[in-house]
This record gives sequence, C-alpha cells and structure tokens, in this order.
Amino acid sequence: MIELALIGIGTGNPDHVTAQAVQAMNAADLILIPLKGPEKSDLAKLRYSLLARHLVNAATQVVEFNLPVRDADNPSYHAGVAEWHDAIAAAWESQIRAALGSDPAGRVALLIWGDPMLYDSSLRIAGRLRQNLPLVPRVIPGITAIQALCAAHAIPLNAVGASVIITTGRQLRAQGWPPGAGTVVVVLDGGCAFEVLDPEGISIWWGGCVAMPQEALIAGPLNAVGAQIIATRAALRAQHGWVMDIYLMRRDDPAS
Amino acid sequence: MIELALIGIGTGNPDHVTAQAVQAMNAADLILIPLKGPEKSDLAKLRYSLLARHLVNAATQVVEFNLPVRDADNPSYHAGVAEWHDAIAAAWESQIRAALGSDPAGRVALLIWGDPMLYDSSLRIAGRLRQNLPLVPRVIPGITAIQALCAAHAIPLNAVGASVIITTGRQLRAQGWPPGAGTVVVVLDGGCAFEVLDPEGISIWWGGCVAMPQEALIAGPLNAVGAQIIATRAALRAQHGWVMDIYLMRRDDPAS
Repeated sequence: MIELALIGIGTGNPDHVTAQAVQAMNAADLILIPLKGPEKSDLAKLRYSLLARHLVNAATQVVEFNLPVRDADNPSYHAGVAEWHDAIAAAWESQIRAALGSDPAGRVALLIWGDPMLYDSSLRIAGRLRQNLPLVPRVIPGITAIQALCAAHAIPLNAVGASVIITTGRQLRAQGWPPGAGTVVVVLDGGCAFEVLDPEGISIWWGGCVAMPQEALIAGPLNAVGAQIIATRAALRAQHGWVMDIYLMRRDDPAS
Repeated sequence: MIELALIGIGTGNPDHVTAQAVQAMNAADLILIPLKGPEKSDLAKLRYSLLARHLVNAATQVVEFNLPVRDADNPSYHAGVAEWHDAIAAAWESQIRAALGSDPAGRVALLIWGDPMLYDSSLRIAGRLRQNLPLVPRVIPGITAIQALCAAHAIPLNAVGASVIITTGRQLRAQGWPPGAGTVVVVLDGGCAFEVLDPEGISIWWGGCVAMPQEALIAGPLNAVGAQIIATRAALRAQHGWVMDIYLMRRDDPAS
C-alpha cells in the first residue's frame, strides 16, 4: 500500500507552512520534486528551501523529475488537460517504482503549491494512478493564494452574509461578470481578463506573486488602477521570466 | 501605535497552525480570548491549548473577556450585525486600555477561528476600533473549514477550469441553487438549508466540526444521505451543546 501525501505548502512564504505539513514531509519515504520551465525552477527552489528548513529525516529520498508539458494547441481544453494528467500520472508512477521498487509500498509525498483542493490537479492525477498502484491519497491543507491575497491587503473575502464566486481568467473572459455577483475572485488568469469588464463601479485588490519575495500589490477602483496592474504584471514577468497573479473584485451594487 | 494581529488558527486541528501564527502569538504583548456560550467554551479551550503548546513569551498577557451577544431578534439582519460589531469593538477597546494603559501602544493579538478573511467579523470590528485607537490590522492566514472539509474527504474544491460559489445557509434557503453553478460550498448554515433543494442530481460532501476531535463526515448523493446528515448534525449538537458544519455540493450537470 502507498500513502500519497499531497502537502499544501502555501504560495511562497515559508512561514505559511503548517505543523502538519512539516510532519508529513518527515514521514515520507520519497518526496517528488517536479521540474518545468522558469517558474517551476523558482518553485522547485522554494520546495528545496522548505525541505532544507524542515526535513530532518535522513531516510527520506528527494527525487526530481521532469513534469510533462500540456499541449496548449489541443483544440479541446478539457481533452488537453486530460492527456496531460495521464502523462503526469505515468511520470509519478515511473518515479515511485524507480525509488520504491516494482511492487512499491510506503509513503510518497508531493509538495503542492497553495492547497491541493484549489485549482490543482494532483488529486485527479492520484485518481488515475490508483488504476495502476494500490494508493491512498492524503491531503494536507496549505495556505492558498486567495488567503495570501486577502491577508496582504487586510481585507475580508466576503461582504457580510454574502456569497463569493471563485472563477478563472478563462471563464471571466468568456462570460463577463457573473450575474448578480458581489465579490469575484479570479485565479489562473493568463493575462488580465478584467479588461473585458466595464470597470465602472468595480473595485479590485490585485496581487502578483503573493507571499513571495517579489510580491506586488495594487488596490483601487478598476478604472483607476487597471492599467497599472497590467504594467506591473508585465514588469514582474519580464524581470522573473514568469508571473502568477490573483485578484478580488467587488461591485458596489451587486444588483446592477 | 497598536498592531492588531488577527491570527488564523484553523478549525481545531492544532497541527494546522502555521509557523507565522506561532511567531505572531509570541510577538504579542496582549492576547484577547473571547468567551461566549457552550461552543465558545470549547473554542476557548482550543485557543488555550494552542497557547499552552506554542506561547513561550512569558511577557505576553493573556486576557479573557465576555463577547457581547448578537440580538437575533433585530428585524434587520444587517443592522443587528452592525450593532453587535459596535459592541465587540467597545469590548476590545476596553480590554486593550485596561491592559496597555489609557494611551495604549504595542502588539495585540486575537486567535481567529479558521482565517480572518472568511466569514469572520474581526477585520470589520478592527475598522470600527480605528476610529478610537491608532491601530493597524495585520492578518495571518489560517486553514479554513472549507480546506479542512476538502482535505478530510480528499476532494478538490473545483471541477477542472470551473467556478465555485461560496455561500451561506441563509442565502441558499432564500434563493435555492445558484443559477448555473456547478459547485456550491455552504457555510454559516444554522440548520441544513440543503433541505430546500430538489436533491436529484446533486452530490454532497458534509463535515460536522471538521478538524476537531468530534469530526463527522458524510458524502454521497444528496437524496441518499441528506437524512443521515440531518440526524448526525443533531446528534453532534445534542452531545456537545453546539455544532458547526460545512458542506460542498456538486451538480452533475450544472446547466440543468
């Protein structure tokens, strides 16, 4: 039997790691570190710095592997994602068998950006892997970018007693402001999808690389700060070779 | 100047506390512990157990105070909440002046259930307090009940690339299933608001007192497990004098 611990590690602030995450790192026989592209290099560095600080179990193997790349040209987004997840599951399986033997057993861990529950594929990939290996997933929650954003701006996520919609840049671009929504959080935005909105009456709290050393924060009426966000995001990407950002928007009058 | 640290402490599992939270506890001159009713007694116990484990600064004062009670009979929900927040702000101010003097300065901390950003009033109450005291709020994120629920069930919050709505029991009861929603998370539900839904085609992942010793978990099609959830919730309340619960629901076909 394999226990696969998906350990949420937060979004860059090493002090956001929980005691449970530290325990799970040290209980692991094998920790897999994915590598891919410039942002993954920075993220791999963060994973190594967390391990350097918290991993004291000398018996834990730490193994890097190259993460398969998603075929962004696949005309079907969902089919492209499904194929990609298949390829990642195969990469995990190969590494697990190489480290723990052809009939593997023990504790395997992955250090997951943010929290494994939030716009992360690891649980679905683990589900695929269960077809080939006797595997039980275990989830250790971590601080998400949404929380890091709200903490950095010192704002609540929700208005009193009100709903919140968490959506993606893709959805926002395709569908505009969700009807009736007061608060909208946008994740996985490849490029400032808020541009499609009529900014009137919308306030935005934006964060680039939240909780990382290069964190940038901007807040204000969308029509006043939208251009500044676009420029700051581009500058972060130019300087570091990659950028991740997230934002929360509120409409003064949700009914409008 | 007063720094008011709102420290997210998770929802009961002491191992969900972050390194940043531990640092903030030990940096505080004054930690305020609110007391109210049977659930608050259990929550106060949890706060004390976290302090017993993590607070090593002998100079930190830990002070209990009685939390004002919200007037649930106020015909306006929002007016009732606003009055309640005024009363809590006055209680904080009184405790801060008693501990730190009539011209108070230093670091004050509150241990916040979950994360201060998520359906918690502390940031709004701190805003009121700033009218009377030179106060800067600082937010330390903590693991929320939503994350503890998803971790316990080992499920992702969102479907691939899809949106999520976080709403309250009150909203769900008043408005039913949010139009077009695939995933709905319900918080602050005083009593199984899912009863108002046609359960056909809806799956539910429910947790009572998630991440606490008395945690109860139920998952399945809503029409198969709804009654079991209602009974389990009632049993938890009967046994402990209070219950907090949270659930995630998914509709197989969001368009329907």
